[in-house]
Amino acid sequence: MDSSLAPFFTPAGIALIGVSHDPSKLGYGMARNLIQSGYTGSVHLVNPHGGELLGHPVIKSIADVPNPVDLAVILASAGQMPGILKDCAARGVKAAIIAAGGFRETGAEGAALEQECLRIARESGMRLLGPNCIGIIDTHLPMDTTFLQPPPAPVGEIAFISHSGAICAGVVDYLRGQGIGLSGLYSLGNQVDVNETTILEPVASAPYTSVVTLYMEGVSSGRDFVETARRVSRWKPVLALKVGRFDAGRKAAASHTGALAGQEAAFDAGFQRAGVIRAGTTEEMFRWARALAWSPLPAGRNVAVLTNAGGPGVTASDALELNGLKMAVLSSTTREELSKILPAAASLRNPVDMLAQAMPEDYARCLSFLLEDPGVDSVMVITPPPPSSSAGGIAKAIIPIIQAHQKPAAVVLMGDLLVQEGVQFLRAARIPEFTFPEDAASALGVLSQRAELIPALEDEPLIPDRINPQAAAALLQGKPAGFLSQDVALDLFGSYGFNVARNDLAVDAEQAVSLAETCGYPVALKVASAEIPHKSDVGGVLLGAKNGDEVRKGYLQVVENARRAKPDANIEGVTIQRMLPAGQDVIVGTIRDPQFGPLVMFGSGGVEVEGLKDVAFALAPLTRREAVGLLEKTWAGRKLNGYRNLVAADREAVLDALVRIGQLAVDHPSILEMDVNPLRALPQGQGAYAIDIRVRIE
Amino acid sequence: MDSSLAPFFTPAGIALIGVSHDPSKLGYGMARNLIQSGYTGSVHLVNPHGGELLGHPVIKSIADVPNPVDLAVILASAGQMPGILKDCAARGVKAAIIAAGGFRETGAEGAALEQECLRIARESGMRLLGPNCIGIIDTHLPMDTTFLQPPPAPVGEIAFISHSGAICAGVVDYLRGQGIGLSGLYSLGNQVDVNETTILEPVASAPYTSVVTLYMEGVSSGRDFVETARRVSRWKPVLALKVGRFDAGRKAAASHTGALAGQEAAFDAGFQRAGVIRAGTTEEMFRWARALAWSPLPAGRNVAVLTNAGGPGVTASDALELNGLKMAVLSSTTREELSKILPAAASLRNPVDMLAQAMPEDYARCLSFLLEDPGVDSVMVITPPPPSSSAGGIAKAIIPIIQAHQKPAAVVLMGDLLVQEGVQFLRAARIPEFTFPEDAASALGVLSQRAELIPALEDEPLIPDRINPQAAAALLQGKPAGFLSQDVALDLFGSYGFNVARNDLAVDAEQAVSLAETCGYPVALKVASAEIPHKSDVGGVLLGAKNGDEVRKGYLQVVENARRAKPDANIEGVTIQRMLPAGQDVIVGTIRDPQFGPLVMFGSGGVEVEGLKDVAFALAPLTRREAVGLLEKTWAGRKLNGYRNLVAADREAVLDALVRIGQLAVDHPSILEMDVNPLRALPQGQGAYAIDIRVRIE
Repeated sequence: MDSSLAPFFTPAGIALIGVSHDPSKLGYGMARNLIQSGYTGSVHLVNPHGGELLGHPVIKSIADVPNPVDLAVILASAGQMPGILKDCAARGVKAAIIAAGGFRETGAEGAALEQECLRIARESGMRLLGPNCIGIIDTHLPMDTTFLQPPPAPVGEIAFISHSGAICAGVVDYLRGQGIGLSGLYSLGNQVDVNETTILEPVASAPYTSVVTLYMEGVSSGRDFVETARRVSRWKPVLALKVGRFDAGRKAAASHTGALAGQEAAFDAGFQRAGVIRAGTTEEMFRWARALAWSPLPAGRNVAVLTNAGGPGVTASDALELNGLKMAVLSSTTREELSKILPAAASLRNPVDMLAQAMPEDYARCLSFLLEDPGVDSVMVITPPPPSSSAGGIAKAIIPIIQAHQKPAAVVLMGDLLVQEGVQFLRAARIPEFTFPEDAASALGVLSQRAELIPALEDEPLIPDRINPQAAAALLQGKPAGFLSQDVALDLFGSYGFNVARNDLAVDAEQAVSLAETCGYPVALKVASAEIPHKSDVGGVLLGAKNGDEVRKGYLQVVENARRAKPDANIEGVTIQRMLPAGQDVIVGTIRDPQFGPLVMFGSGGVEVEGLKDVAFALAPLTRREAVGLLEKTWAGRKLNGYRNLVAADREAVLDALVRIGQLAVDHPSILEMDVNPLRALPQGQGAYAIDIRVRIE
Repeated sequence: MDSSLAPFFTPAGIALIGVSHDPSKLGYGMARNLIQSGYTGSVHLVNPHGGELLGHPVIKSIADVPNPVDLAVILASAGQMPGILKDCAARGVKAAIIAAGGFRETGAEGAALEQECLRIARESGMRLLGPNCIGIIDTHLPMDTTFLQPPPAPVGEIAFISHSGAICAGVVDYLRGQGIGLSGLYSLGNQVDVNETTILEPVASAPYTSVVTLYMEGVSSGRDFVETARRVSRWKPVLALKVGRFDAGRKAAASHTGALAGQEAAFDAGFQRAGVIRAGTTEEMFRWARALAWSPLPAGRNVAVLTNAGGPGVTASDALELNGLKMAVLSSTTREELSKILPAAASLRNPVDMLAQAMPEDYARCLSFLLEDPGVDSVMVITPPPPSSSAGGIAKAIIPIIQAHQKPAAVVLMGDLLVQEGVQFLRAARIPEFTFPEDAASALGVLSQRAELIPALEDEPLIPDRINPQAAAALLQGKPAGFLSQDVALDLFGSYGFNVARNDLAVDAEQAVSLAETCGYPVALKVASAEIPHKSDVGGVLLGAKNGDEVRKGYLQVVENARRAKPDANIEGVTIQRMLPAGQDVIVGTIRDPQFGPLVMFGSGGVEVEGLKDVAFALAPLTRREAVGLLEKTWAGRKLNGYRNLVAADREAVLDALVRIGQLAVDHPSILEMDVNPLRALPQGQGAYAIDIRVRIE
């Protein structure tokens, strides 16, 4: 950890600046919370009026605060802040939490004040959290610098980092009701200095934190975040709720890849690289976090369901399938053992339905057999309020069984009041419980997701051979912003080891015929103009010309079509390209995201690519697993293996092309976006050819 | 209502058969619940041992039960049931709830007993609910025939009909905790007589029921359910949680339509026709039900968000977009009025962020302006535990404002303990509250869905002109089960007014040339064999033959290819078809679902239809709105309007084809499945042609 951040995490003494005697004021709440939190360092209350508060003297001036003091928490008007920070620096304070608002969020004047605060902090080496934030809670140290209403945050093993302060108040209260405990809470506010990336590793490194959760409205630096989060994810699960999906006005994109990417594709690709699990809702994030904090990880996706009624079993099967899990096939040994315990009418197939008479000891014995079955990776145990026993009794009976095995168990206690005793027993034993099978299945799904992503965090990006970055740089050097001409684009791809369809420029019809004779019929004619990106839209493409006469007429036609559609465009001539044998046409592309850098896209191409949306994205440069993932997530990729009368294509060549285009984008930051549409994958062993290439540079 | 069902809903007297003095037995719970429920009719407890229970005499024999008695609730072993039912019938009981299990769910012997019970009931005109069910609760009558543990079910306006009894116990307890009230609960068990369709209309007709919810594991008769539910949906919302998505082993399907349909497509299409709103999870169903019970319906999808912090506003915007809602654009009047109330740093754009200092009266005043704005159809009001006021205070301030307007309001009180007072105030005022914006957005979305589906319930299916059912019947008459030959299929489609691509059978190469000369080049050659459904898979198709020579060679080639691939297939020859001008190729098809009858499919065709899965289904016969819906749900349908260089196609002709194929399937039940792949939609005004048709009959 950057040692300058240490005072936020383990302060020796804290000065609360701006405390109040009025219990309705935030400055009172701040003092109350820190004093009642059990913080064992020195607490210094500061207010110009002095006096005494909650048994502590109130110091009139920051200069008079005694040692030790390394952290200040400040509530004051924004205008006073620069002066207070100077006083803090002079007094030797190393880090400050500016809880007060009135800065960037209010406009230009506030933004200037915020920058002034940063300048003062930088000069003295002081670190800042905020402004406009709630502060920090550490339930284990313990310490509470917030002014949140009591009761205090529930103690646990989940850390919560939030861009929104208002969310924190609701989340702490909500988690308390759910029996979900926090190890810490970190409100970031305007992030003038410390941001989600800076704080992530120190937060995760607390030994009492098992899972880190993030509420994110954006990211300070996408690539830095990915790098840090990937490091953290190797040893602790990181979950994120990213909001603001629809806020950012999308710039008009010139390429298919750009049009399809949008901001969320970049976040999804970034989270995937980083091993961050993205939740859909606030409640989902915390339910998942609790399961990850409390459960071992499963060895596979096979789940056994134990229930005392048919309906909940059906609901559970559905929900498990929807979450990508499988109903475990029970071994004959397991079925035999179950048959000895259960009545004849019980169902011994998964879901195991013990019937309504099942008593706590039946739950325990059956569960034990299920957990012993090598074909079972995790279990879901379900009970409605039992007619002839109690949920508490069932919980008590199954807890030791679950604790004796290293497999995840999600317990569903359907109901509320009538199952409360069971809920409390399970929470005390740190076994996740749920009200309905749907949430339990979602939690078991995320445990599998976590188990499977861990190996991916060790992957390294592939480095393609036969690339010539110098040659590529020379080609890009001095080119005007906009689209590269087709010949430069082809050379550029050639320099990165792509098979490119031979493609020569004819400046008149006779040269076109001569080029066609050289490369061989049939040929495709495409109008050559950097100003006409979508050539087929203007009738600038003719396919399948089979002899000199067709080429001659075709030349004149495509040029005339292009002239009519775009009279001002500079037309260089017509490219002549031998038409390749049949294969599978796909699109590969890249787009440079302002936050996350280059993304690689793969999917179904053609003119309909933007309508079909059969595309997937990953961060460049690609690991092998990510490249394969792009193929698996799309129909275009899955059908490369062959489908009905569609011959299997050269899948390896497509993977290779994905890696190459990613590397090209990474190596040359002036490239904004690229589309290869189509990349034609020939039958296995015959390679893949870039047929039409568009490259836009800065 | 069928008057024979009346004793289940308004019994004059109830005999509880099988009561017990042992408080741990279900027979005790049943007596306790009915007596404590406040039921005002006669209660008769029956047990051979006699005595007294809970202040009521226990009658030893059914024959001795005095008047009035029209409903019996029976807990006894399955073997005793026939005798008990006979006694009940003899005593004049009109309806019986068989709560006991031990019937069909336990195997063949139990199934036989169940049928015996049904026979006895039928003979005497007695109606049966169950066996193996929980019974009925009516919280308004009131009446409780169940043995569920106290406390009793919470009173409210939502009726719950369930195929699972076990789910009921959990749901009642859960709803109590959520402050969601039930008007009634109806547990159906094995449905030997009364099923979800029989009971739906009587349940919905109770004046104190505002919304009907269903937990369904299947359907007794799909078409009957759709008809009944569509009638009910016209005046009351019906919500369903359908489980068992993955249980039914799918039969191997011979057509693309069949392969893509599956059981869930039929349920989705049935629910759509019926106006039943399908929920994804148990919790979602009841949250939606409460919103529908308590809220007026919105006039449109524009939502205003009122909050006191930025973060929750961003979360709300995201969630609203995800649920298909729009952020309302506030009028200049509204913005001006808000600016008079709010501090300068507040955000007057939607979401309206009043900032953290907002007091209850600020919420009330701002909310009033938002609800008055004609561009606002509904509102979401959000507060985290407020630092300087209370959630209770805010709730109290906004309740009269919401009640004074006829627009839906979803109130988000983020937290638990700290917002409880506000939660209670809102529930008492019947205004739906939520813990996070995501759930509130989902509820507002369902209100819009309900508002929009009401007009669709008045739609009538379109009846196509120029159809000749007699001719079609004659063509189908006597044909063997399996695929029709292509010429019969073409005639069949011709008889229903389809444009079919002219398509003649040549039995040798010379006849092929002669047919091609007649219809005009270029032509397509396709091997003709009822045993080769996927012709292109075996090389049995040649496209674009341009002269006699190509046709002659092509004939020999496709026959040879087919012979090699399927040596045993009976090959009739080769069909010759003029190749149509370019257009947009789509697939239309039908499949006969065992429960819901014929479904129409529409989507992207070609050989990749099963991979792309760009298809949608609806029940035949189609209404205009349903046909349009099939187009709007698919990329294949949306691009008929034109896309880039793709010329707009004859959309009306495609809609017409969908209606015709649906009618064809409805009129002729022997048709199991049909695919038109492709149907070629020519440019606007030029029609759509069925090019390749496959019809499978019983």
